[in-house]
Formats: sequence, structure tokens, C-alpha cells
Amino acid sequence: MKAYKEMTREELLTLKAELEKAYEDAKGKGLKLDMSRGKPSPAQLDLSKGFLDALSSEDTLKAQDGTDTRNYGVLDGIPEAKELMAEIMDVSPESVIVCGNASLNIMYDTVARSFTHGVNGNTPWCKLDKVKFLCPAPGYDRHFRITEFFGVEMITVPMSPEGPDMDMVEKYVNNDESVKGIWCVPKYSNPQGYSYSDATVKRFAALKPAAKDFRIFWDNAYAIHHLYEESDRQDNILNILDECAKCGNPNMVYEFASTSKVTYAGGGISAVASSPENLAWIKKSMTVQTIGYDKVNQLRHVKFFKNFDGVKKHMMKHAESMRPKFLAVEGVLEKELGGLGIGTWTNPNGGYFISFDSLPGCAKQIVAKCKEAGVVLTGAGATFPYGKDPEDSNIRIAPSFPSPEEMAQATDLFVLCVKLVSVEKILESK
Amino acid sequence: MKAYKEMTREELLTLKAELEKAYEDAKGKGLKLDMSRGKPSPAQLDLSKGFLDALSSEDTLKAQDGTDTRNYGVLDGIPEAKELMAEIMDVSPESVIVCGNASLNIMYDTVARSFTHGVNGNTPWCKLDKVKFLCPAPGYDRHFRITEFFGVEMITVPMSPEGPDMDMVEKYVNNDESVKGIWCVPKYSNPQGYSYSDATVKRFAALKPAAKDFRIFWDNAYAIHHLYEESDRQDNILNILDECAKCGNPNMVYEFASTSKVTYAGGGISAVASSPENLAWIKKSMTVQTIGYDKVNQLRHVKFFKNFDGVKKHMMKHAESMRPKFLAVEGVLEKELGGLGIGTWTNPNGGYFISFDSLPGCAKQIVAKCKEAGVVLTGAGATFPYGKDPEDSNIRIAPSFPSPEEMAQATDLFVLCVKLVSVEKILESK
Repeated sequence: MKAYKEMTREELLTLKAELEKAYEDAKGKGLKLDMSRGKPSPAQLDLSKGFLDALSSEDTLKAQDGTDTRNYGVLDGIPEAKELMAEIMDVSPESVIVCGNASLNIMYDTVARSFTHGVNGNTPWCKLDKVKFLCPAPGYDRHFRITEFFGVEMITVPMSPEGPDMDMVEKYVNNDESVKGIWCVPKYSNPQGYSYSDATVKRFAALKPAAKDFRIFWDNAYAIHHLYEESDRQDNILNILDECAKCGNPNMVYEFASTSKVTYAGGGISAVASSPENLAWIKKSMTVQTIGYDKVNQLRHVKFFKNFDGVKKHMMKHAESMRPKFLAVEGVLEKELGGLGIGTWTNPNGGYFISFDSLPGCAKQIVAKCKEAGVVLTGAGATFPYGKDPEDSNIRIAPSFPSPEEMAQATDLFVLCVKLVSVEKILESK
Repeated sequence: MKAYKEMTREELLTLKAELEKAYEDAKGKGLKLDMSRGKPSPAQLDLSKGFLDALSSEDTLKAQDGTDTRNYGVLDGIPEAKELMAEIMDVSPESVIVCGNASLNIMYDTVARSFTHGVNGNTPWCKLDKVKFLCPAPGYDRHFRITEFFGVEMITVPMSPEGPDMDMVEKYVNNDESVKGIWCVPKYSNPQGYSYSDATVKRFAALKPAAKDFRIFWDNAYAIHHLYEESDRQDNILNILDECAKCGNPNMVYEFASTSKVTYAGGGISAVASSPENLAWIKKSMTVQTIGYDKVNQLRHVKFFKNFDGVKKHMMKHAESMRPKFLAVEGVLEKELGGLGIGTWTNPNGGYFISFDSLPGCAKQIVAKCKEAGVVLTGAGATFPYGKDPEDSNIRIAPSFPSPEEMAQATDLFVLCVKLVSVEKILESK
């Protein structure tokens, strides 16, 4: 394969003509595929067949401590649900509060509470002139939308396969008192599928924040979402709560997780893990906000999985369903784009996304061209704060929902659009 | 029966001695009863037997519009759940958003959102020097805790069997721009079981608020919670959304409801109903806060009840379970306290509570004496803002959880304590 940039203007013009014809043909196929969101496929949801039968009217519906899950009471989750979520998050049950069906909701509430009531007794953020968050990017658009909604100034921090640029993180956190938080997806990051190295986690834990109320928002959304069974292809990250405690920063982190991509995205349970001091502060508002979350669904999860081994076995079935789709995408990308020098992409061991980087200034056009031909991708820029990718090069590919065949089709179109837009871009500069 | 106040000092002293002896005997019985919270009894929860079987893995779990309830998506509730909640609230499905398992959570979020982002574009309340709420009292302690938590100045408004003192409500709302809201339980009010008269509802709808962002928090918690089957013993209230619209105040009210006391207190669904403009504003933050609530549980409710008739039939079973407890309490109160002039109480047609008013300055002592003898009541004062009952006379009785026999026992002790404390109080002034 000859790299596009080494081609002559003539070669590029010939190629462009071919690609344009191919694109017109592709449009004729009337594709209708969606690679925009990290939605589980129906097949994955079917893996939880039996979940709804795990509890029936014949059961006592009592928690192990005798709590009637049908009734009011128990603010922070029934003991067995705490245990299960604790194992998923690799923390102790005492450091866990089990909540409703969406960890995003806990994150929003955590930010909202910090604005209205402050963090552990510090000045409410709504009383401050400026609140800043660090946003490793590309990252999760819904994180950025929360802080944008609260008028937080978001500062983009570059990502590497090791995690965020820690020199930059340390510079900001340790010197700027208005930096109050950082959004992290430490394992199988959204969208790159990177997992933070031990060195990165240790540097996080060793931060010396200028702000007493600085917090790490550690969204461990893909803690158990491996794509491969082989242990050497399963990422592991250090336990941030432990590391922070070791460094004398026990209150510096909130960890979040949920079963939205384990059982049902529309009917899972979520949890937050943190230090005793942080949990006490959270409960102070939680006890005003609710009488308690859905304990019946908490019990249902425990009855369905029995224990953490049950969860891990279940997640291997998810892996079997997801892997072919990732391989389909990666295969087409490698076959069609390898050596052309017009794009790079990740080959993650887990999570829900593949991150693609085109030549600078091409992402928006690629996404637009794909849409025109019937393939919907996450909007270009969505993976950056304020939806603005300074390079206009990052595109998030979400292979989970379509079938492997559809993924191959969609990726065929995707690479065609990448080629076409790249040729046009290179021609501009020739 | 001779009224205590007409008794001579000697008669009172003799009576006091008898009562003290009876109280010592009662303490010996080692009662252990809880009349403190409006918790459904296990028997009531058993009425929803079959609820968990309403959905099984064999079902498609698709909503009527084809939505896969297991997956992400649908912010404001599946259509059939909207319809069901709309009928419960006597509003149109278009004016409903179905949420998680607790309407209290929606109310908290609504207040929190008003503080951080304002109401429909008005100045966020956190930027104002003062925010006031009107609090008809006695009322629901958890309402008052929300506004207290946000530093709202709470103004007590006296209640009558017709509803809140509307002269006072109009005076404040129409003249004081810092009055931003009022907490209402319009039907079978907590704790008195009063239902607002048509005149009261119409005066609410006709308010001319000084504050553009004044809102009525209409907690219709007991919309379908009748105690009697006879229609002449079922209260009805006017539809506040319609009345407000008629008066040109379509955005002035949020109505809340849930199935916490219909299916499972720990696993129900909740809803808010309001004007299109208000709903649009709510969704602006909701779409940042969550990807969607538990749609599986929404579908489960619809499948279990089939339709609103199913709900109404179900609530009549609840009535059969609750009525004997209310009658037990009312019977003992009438038999033991009738004509003594030391207490008044309500005989509601629905809801979860009976409200008792002792002689001024006696409530705390009565509650303490009951506790000493093994009967727990809601703390005296809890039904007023800041937990302070200026008269120290209101006591909330929650008959739902214990059995009718237990309720009779508990009430026997209660009236004994009322008599004893009242005698002591009257003697002070003789």
C-alpha cells in the first residue's frame, strides 16, 4: 500500500475519481446502520434471560439482614447488593452506596450537590467565581455535558495509552485552587479503550491539590467489560481508593459503576464508592433526596448472579457477543487503511468503543459523508469538551449494537469515506 | 364524661393518681409498637402478589411503541406508563414525565434545579439573597426537610378542613417576590387527611404571584388512596393543572405522584405532571442527569394492573386492609377522650394518617410518655417547619404498619398518656 501523501497529484486525482464512484454506488445500497452510541445489542440483553425470573412473588423478598425490600427504608443499599457492587468495583462493601438505575445520575447529583452544598463542608461551588474541571479527551461526552450544564470551565487534557497527561494534571491540580475535579474513565476508556497504567494511578493518588475540595470522578464504567477471555488480554488497574488512602488522600476520589451494561441498560443498579467521610457527606443529602432506591431490583441482581463469579461468567458471554464486532471493525480498518497514513485507531481489550483519528480537519466531513450514505456515527467533536475537537480528527466508533455483518458493512463505508475525504484534504495542499 | 377543665383540683388529683397507676401497669406490658411512619404493612405489600410475575423472560419486554425497555433510551417514560400515571393523577399523558422509584426524589431535584439553574430561564435561586416557601402545617416533614436543606425560609400557613389559609397564601404569594413556592398535599393531606375544597383549588389557580418563578408543589401522594368504597366517603379535588390553565397560569404548578403506596414502597414508579413549557425546562436538565429511568419497572406496572380500573380495584383491597386500623384508632379515641376536652382528632376518608391535637404544651410529653411505655410515634413537632410546633400540640398517628389489634393496644396507651399529661397540665394552672 502506498501512503496517500507520497502519491502524485495525478495519482490522487485518479484515486479520487474511483472513490467518488464507489461512494455513489455505496449510497445506492440504502444502508441504515447506527454506530453512534454504546448501546448493548438485543443479543446481549438476551444473555440476561432469566433475570426477571430471579425474583417471583413466591420469594420472601427479604434481604439477608431481614429487610423487606418491598417496603421503605435502607438508604444506602441492601447488604448483599453492596457486596456484589463492591466486588465489581474491587472495593470493600463498607465503602459502597448502591443507588438507582444509572451511575450517570449519581455523578450528576454529586456535581449538583457540590454546587448547592459544597464538598464536605467547603464553600458551595455556586458561591465561587470560577470552577474548573480537567477533561481528559477524547472522553465521554455525557461527562462533559454535566460540567458544561453547571457552567464549569472545562480544560482538555490529552490522553495517551497510559492515561491522561499527568504532568498537565499535576500542574493544574496542585497549583490552581479553582480546579475542583477531573473526569476519568480509568479502564477501557471511552472512546479509546485505554486503561490507566499503575504509574498513572499512583500519580493520581499522590496529587497535592491546591483545592481542599478537589475530587477525582473515577467512572469505572467498564470495570468488568473485557473482550477477551485470555488473562493477558484483560486489562487491570490499581485500586484508586487504596492508593489515595496510602498517599494520605482518602477523600480525594469518588468511584462510580453500574450494571447497565451487565444486565439491562434500562433496568440495572448503580453504585458510588468512596471514603467514610465522603459517604457520610453524600448521605446527608441523600437522606433528604430520597427514602431509598429500588431495593427489589437490588435483590433481583443478587439472586440472578448468586455471586461475583456469576457476574464474571456472565460477562464472558458478553465478550463472546461483542468480540466479533470489534474484530470486524478492526479487520476492515487494517485491511483497507493499513499503510495509507490517513488514519490511526485503537484495538482495545475491552469497553464499548474504538477510537479513530483521521488526518486533521477531516472528522466532521467523514461523519457527514457516512451519514449521507446511511451510517450514523457519534457526532465528530462529541468526545471533546464543548463538542469541539481542536484537530477535528477524532471519531468514536460504537460496535456494540449492530451485528458483526452490519459492522463490516458499516466499516466498509466508513473507510471509503475516510479515503475520499483524506484524498480531498491532501489535494488541497498539493 | 366530665370535661377535665371543669373538675376540681381534688378530682384531678384523684384522677392523676389512678392514671399514674394505670400507666405503671401499662409499662409493665412491655409493648413494642411503631406508629411513627406511613409505611405500608406486610399485608398491604402482599396485595401486590403477582407484581413480580407480571414480567418474565418470556415477555418481549417491548413497550407499545416498540421500545426495548431493557435498553437505553426514552427519557420521559414509555407511553403506556405515562397513560397509567396520567389517569392516576387525572391529567393527560402528554403532561406527564415518568421517573424513578420515588416522587420525593423528583421534588428534591425540582428544588435543586431551581437553585442551580433557575425556573424557566429566571435567575437561579442560589443567586438570590432570600428564597421563601409557604408551608401549610401541620404538613409532611420530608417536604420541609428539602426546603430547610436548601436554606429556604419556611413560613407556616395554618390548615383548615378546606385546605391552607388562602387569605394568607394570597397575601404572601401576590406581594412577596421572594416567595417562590408552596408545599401542598391537596388530597387526604399528611397528617390531617383533609382534602382541599373546590374554592381553595380555584383560589390557588387564581393567584397572581409577585415572582414569575413562583411554583405550587402539588404532591398528590394520596390521589387514589381512599379508605372507603362508598362514593360519598371518597374525596375528590379539582384538577389543578386545568384550573391554573383556565386562570392563565399554566406554568404555576408541578404535580407529583407515585406508586410507592400502590405496589411496593421500595420498588414503585413516580411521575411529575406540568405544562409543556415546564416539562421542556425539566427535560433540559433531565437529559443531562440521566439516560432514562427504569423502563422495565414501568412496563411491569402496566402489565400488572392492565389499566386504571385494575389500579382502582387494587386500591380497594388496600382500603380493606387500612380501614380497620383507622377505625380502631378512631374508636378508642372517641370512647376514651370524647367529651373530655383534652384533645381533638381527624377522621379522614383516605390517606395514611390521623392528626391529633392535644392541649397546648402537651404533645412532646405525650410522645415521650408513649415511647417510655414502648409505643413510638412521629416526633412531636415533625409536622411543622424546622420541627417546631409553636403550640406543641400536634401529633401524627400512622396506623398503616401495625395490625388492627396492635393499633387498638397502642391507642389505649396513647389515650392514657394524653389523659395523664393533660391532667398534669391543667393542675399547673389550678
